[in-house]
Amino acid sequence: MRRPRRKAEETRGDILNTAETLFRERGIAKCSIADVAQALHMSPANIFKHFHSKASLADAICDRHISRMIGRFGTLDEPAPAPERLAIVVRKLMEAHLQDLRDNPFLFEMIFLMSEADLPSGQHYRRLIENLFADLIRQGVESGAYKCTDPQAISQHVAAAFASVLHPVLLAKAGEAELHDRCDGLARLVNAALQNPLAK
Amino acid sequence: MRRPRRKAEETRGDILNTAETLFRERGIAKCSIADVAQALHMSPANIFKHFHSKASLADAICDRHISRMIGRFGTLDEPAPAPERLAIVVRKLMEAHLQDLRDNPFLFEMIFLMSEADLPSGQHYRRLIENLFADLIRQGVESGAYKCTDPQAISQHVAAAFASVLHPVLLAKAGEAELHDRCDGLARLVNAALQNPLAK
Repeated sequence: MRRPRRKAEETRGDILNTAETLFRERGIAKCSIADVAQALHMSPANIFKHFHSKASLADAICDRHISRMIGRFGTLDEPAPAPERLAIVVRKLMEAHLQDLRDNPFLFEMIFLMSEADLPSGQHYRRLIENLFADLIRQGVESGAYKCTDPQAISQHVAAAFASVLHPVLLAKAGEAELHDRCDGLARLVNAALQNPLAK
Repeated sequence: MRRPRRKAEETRGDILNTAETLFRERGIAKCSIADVAQALHMSPANIFKHFHSKASLADAICDRHISRMIGRFGTLDEPAPAPERLAIVVRKLMEAHLQDLRDNPFLFEMIFLMSEADLPSGQHYRRLIENLFADLIRQGVESGAYKCTDPQAISQHVAAAFASVLHPVLLAKAGEAELHDRCDGLARLVNAALQNPLAK
């Protein structure tokens, strides 16, 4: 009885791979669900069984990228003190984004086209980032480096404070030298806040 | 000898007013320089003397809006201590943006369409915001509330920290309740940083 389910997951993966290739080659605006179906020798109805719209297909492609990118940071357990690690994590995340924008400009087009719609992949990205900060801040509090009392709550505001170096739409507009300077400055600012008992 | 110059400035103002009205009515994407010229009974060449492209015309409209909006904050000299004033200023700026998005949705379309290009009005907005923060932080240092040593340098990072509540593209996507919560949380975080001698 497992065979049909595995097949559905495989089909889903095939659709994502083919759509990603076509979006990359032609741009998402010039590519329809029918084009993806044709490239896969499938009926468009078959694709709609898995994805109800081009937006949800694009959303799933973004989500796969994001999960892979953040997955690489889950294993980041450097022995440095929390304030240093915070600065390192933000810088590495920003650099991973910049690399992604260079390698996959179509992804940026996608994010930009869809950024008016509040899609699940964007919310998923935000949650992953907030959890990454919450873990880091919790460890910092345990080691005595950070003084804040509610790591989970403050991690949302810490994530928001880094929006200008972690949000793709803002990232893509600034020069790299400026972004690095801004990233370091924001890490200093946030670290000063987290090391102050005034921060909640 | 002053008459011709005044006339040029008046013409420039007429072009801005008419273009703004047309952009608002039809959307910027569906409106050309030729349409603006026709509405003013002018030749397109005459408009091109003042604005070299539709983008530079849109940029000038945005810049006029921004200058008026920030102008309202120049007179804000409440007697409250610096940390409270910081929170008030950011909240008022955010609310002015939200009001603007409600009243002038075409402005948002414009900012969104142009936000890939790094236009002068965007840089002007950033400089105005940074100066607003620099003044506020300087006063906070003088009164002893803030401990940082370089208000001008840190004001750039403070402005960046508030991007998710002051940047139109990010603002337009979030719900109001969430924005208010984020705005207050960011103000607490930044205030904790500025009151810590660790902040530079």
